[in-house]
Amino acid sequence: MAIHVTVWNEDSAAESAENVLAVYPQGILGAVASIYGEQEEFVTRTAYLSQEEAGLSEEILEDTDVLVWWGHCKHHLVPEEAVTRVQRHVLRGMGLIALHSAHESRIMQRLLGTQCSLRWHENRDKERIFVIEPAHPIMRGVPAWFELEAEEMYGERFDIPAPDALLAIGWYESGDVFRSACCFSRGYGKIFYFQPGHETLRSYYDPYVRLILQNAARWAARDRSLDRPLHSEFAPPLEEKR
Amino acid sequence: MAIHVTVWNEDSAAESAENVLAVYPQGILGAVASIYGEQEEFVTRTAYLSQEEAGLSEEILEDTDVLVWWGHCKHHLVPEEAVTRVQRHVLRGMGLIALHSAHESRIMQRLLGTQCSLRWHENRDKERIFVIEPAHPIMRGVPAWFELEAEEMYGERFDIPAPDALLAIGWYESGDVFRSACCFSRGYGKIFYFQPGHETLRSYYDPYVRLILQNAARWAARDRSLDRPLHSEFAPPLEEKR
Amino acid sequence: MAIHVTVWNEDSAAESAENVLAVYPQGILGAVASIYGEQEEFVTRTAYLSQEEAGLSEEILEDTDVLVWWGHCKHHLVPEEAVTRVQRHVLRGMGLIALHSAHESRIMQRLLGTQCSLRWHENRDKERIFVIEPAHPIMRGVPAWFELEAEEMYGERFDIPAPDALLAIGWYESGDVFRSACCFSRGYGKIFYFQPGHETLRSYYDPYVRLILQNAARWAARDRSLDRPLHSEFAPPLEEKR
Amino acid sequence: MAIHVTVWNEDSAAESAENVLAVYPQGILGAVASIYGEQEEFVTRTAYLSQEEAGLSEEILEDTDVLVWWGHCKHHLVPEEAVTRVQRHVLRGMGLIALHSAHESRIMQRLLGTQCSLRWHENRDKERIFVIEPAHPIMRGVPAWFELEAEEMYGERFDIPAPDALLAIGWYESGDVFRSACCFSRGYGKIFYFQPGHETLRSYYDPYVRLILQNAARWAARDRSLDRPLHSEFAPPLEEKR
Repeated sequence: MAIHVTVWNEDSAAESAENVLAVYPQGILGAVASIYGEQEEFVTRTAYLSQEEAGLSEEILEDTDVLVWWGHCKHHLVPEEAVTRVQRHVLRGMGLIALHSAHESRIMQRLLGTQCSLRWHENRDKERIFVIEPAHPIMRGVPAWFELEAEEMYGERFDIPAPDALLAIGWYESGDVFRSACCFSRGYGKIFYFQPGHETLRSYYDPYVRLILQNAARWAARDRSLDRPLHSEFAPPLEEKR
Repeated sequence: MAIHVTVWNEDSAAESAENVLAVYPQGILGAVASIYGEQEEFVTRTAYLSQEEAGLSEEILEDTDVLVWWGHCKHHLVPEEAVTRVQRHVLRGMGLIALHSAHESRIMQRLLGTQCSLRWHENRDKERIFVIEPAHPIMRGVPAWFELEAEEMYGERFDIPAPDALLAIGWYESGDVFRSACCFSRGYGKIFYFQPGHETLRSYYDPYVRLILQNAARWAARDRSLDRPLHSEFAPPLEEKR
Repeated sequence: MAIHVTVWNEDSAAESAENVLAVYPQGILGAVASIYGEQEEFVTRTAYLSQEEAGLSEEILEDTDVLVWWGHCKHHLVPEEAVTRVQRHVLRGMGLIALHSAHESRIMQRLLGTQCSLRWHENRDKERIFVIEPAHPIMRGVPAWFELEAEEMYGERFDIPAPDALLAIGWYESGDVFRSACCFSRGYGKIFYFQPGHETLRSYYDPYVRLILQNAARWAARDRSLDRPLHSEFAPPLEEKR
Repeated sequence: MAIHVTVWNEDSAAESAENVLAVYPQGILGAVASIYGEQEEFVTRTAYLSQEEAGLSEEILEDTDVLVWWGHCKHHLVPEEAVTRVQRHVLRGMGLIALHSAHESRIMQRLLGTQCSLRWHENRDKERIFVIEPAHPIMRGVPAWFELEAEEMYGERFDIPAPDALLAIGWYESGDVFRSACCFSRGYGKIFYFQPGHETLRSYYDPYVRLILQNAARWAARDRSLDRPLHSEFAPPLEEKR
């Protein structure tokens, strides 16, 4: 059964900056979408902030099994109602994959309850990503470690709740480390945060980054058979009073 | 060093309903405050919703090591700014103890990211609370299980993220179970949720409930020596570029 | 790709006691094997203690993706070498499903490091199992709760390390609770403990028990693409000394 | 109340190699013992392998609140009975602090159920340790990160179960990372693994290493008020049959 992936970005291809387009001719939006487009099991749609309802209408979310989110400079422009809609869908089972600078997006802060802040610099550092849980389905096929020739440094302490599973740790030549791949659950929804993906570097061309993001969508995909309320409800006693 | 506890309630003693005062002559606010008042190590203050700034001013929160929160019917009346102030203090290290119907308070939903919904009925059920982690400091001195002669039933599924530690599970004569004592961390703050405490029943007189809440305040107390920023910051490389 | 399931029991069908055969004509071994036999995706083999090498030879384990283990009175008769072989295979990726009284088997104690003790009585208690993580793949298709008309009571405290995921909690009419479905990981192997299955009661006929055990085998199945050493190894520096 | 710390080493001071004594004139045993000896709240005893019962008699363990363990070349010489005694005491509440090369000690393998293997080299690498959970009591007073001028490299993947709490991650100039500070619980006992401490380098002189190890002993100290059986026991029904 096809997995419906919606790839969301704060910028459409046309809205992307020139230095981004120099690396990713279809923008980050197109670059990430191509990761899912190359596999038949995914039905991929793109959406972006300047669309109606921020590209995150009830209809689109209802048709989404996994939402893949990249944002950076425009977190504050995402309307509260859109964040609330996305949160509600995650709680009801939609998967969420938050990429790179999405760490500080409103939806991540809303779901995790923390600032999701970190230390950073942009210095084209070499990064080496070590797999911590090689048997997790998201790491299937990934070697013990792999390298990205240049990434923005994201360093600890990363202000997140302790993840349900820590899948990878990044080493940077600048002397820093980072929990670069983290799983969370909220309500019935699965959330995966993955650190690579600076907009002017080439990480989304890396085959292991692509594989991890494909695996993550399989792992996070909404289970449509699970349809239960999430509000508190009166529950008559299951046993009679003695 | 004294632990500064602020006990917050949606109602002052004077505002409490008659059926509450019949059980707790000083209201829930006074009943919970007395738990801390009886131990010298705690400096206890009370606060409530109808006070200025909902009783949760910056000054009060700054002087609070642990905030103990009981609310039920007036969750929606707690101002967003007060919730935001409390969240910020928790992230910076203030402990939070959420009692009973506070499961669905705005501050719990804000910090946990979920609805915190559950199944419930009010039928004066006997509850038996089993300790799952007897070596956790919050359970110090508590026997393998203890009984409450009557409680409101709170049943699974409780819509919370998997807690960092599950300390107790409740059995109800109505045929239900509940994760009745749960620990979480957010930012530098420790959070403890504890289920007993319906407003017209007598759980806050129970010696083990009292002991658990005292232990919890010791566990959750803010570490004043930890004073670090929680916003993302530019971090110069720690190692020179090769 | 077929999942190779080996169902192991301390008794063969022929060795089973009469009161067991009265309920399960093929013994517990046959009853559990039938759970997998009814689904085409599983290739099911049975094995038992009185076979050569306790039915757990290197060849059999090498050909096993998931080992399903039921034992009770004969834990102490399982040879240490067999336990060591099973442990090594779990660490290298073989799934392990431990059923009911297998909680105290040598292999569970070996992998978890604790006694795995509990409180118990045998009184044909009604049990109601509440699903705590409905979005976990093992609980796919299972309702919010289901009932077993009679089970042996297994009660807390259950001496296990905090599980990686707590999937279900059991309520007993005798006034007890139990963490009845627990996930662990050790090395590259996934472990699932599931509490129902007293030898003279009918739980293995229950459709939800069967569904959970089928789901669990899919979840725990060995990933044959993961083939890495598990001993410490000398690792030359990845970066040159400055 | 004083915390009784037993510092154990595979070598006494007199048995230590010359290159160890060149750095630590009292051996690793004396170096680690001095960490506790400098604080009044600890009553410190030393013990080592060549003593009767490997220095780990029932009497000594019974009088120990926290056992601090350093071993490397002689793991295989520690008698099984001594390992079993230590395990039993940990399960009953004694704290265990495992240092550096104790990662692969029999007692760690016994308690964690895995090989506890890792990648390593000895190249006097600079290490920088980043605190991941600054609000954990073990990290009290420790800055956001600190440096060790030279350590043996211990690298991922470290074959341990996912720790209950990951407190620190190490960065090495050799291009590696490591989960350098990890908490576990087994039975009623708390376990802390801490990576620094190669026998010919100077890490045990580092003030933050010393502070962390002192904090860890406070955190892991046995709660003498907790005295409950750890074997399975028959438990009469708590409620009458209906």
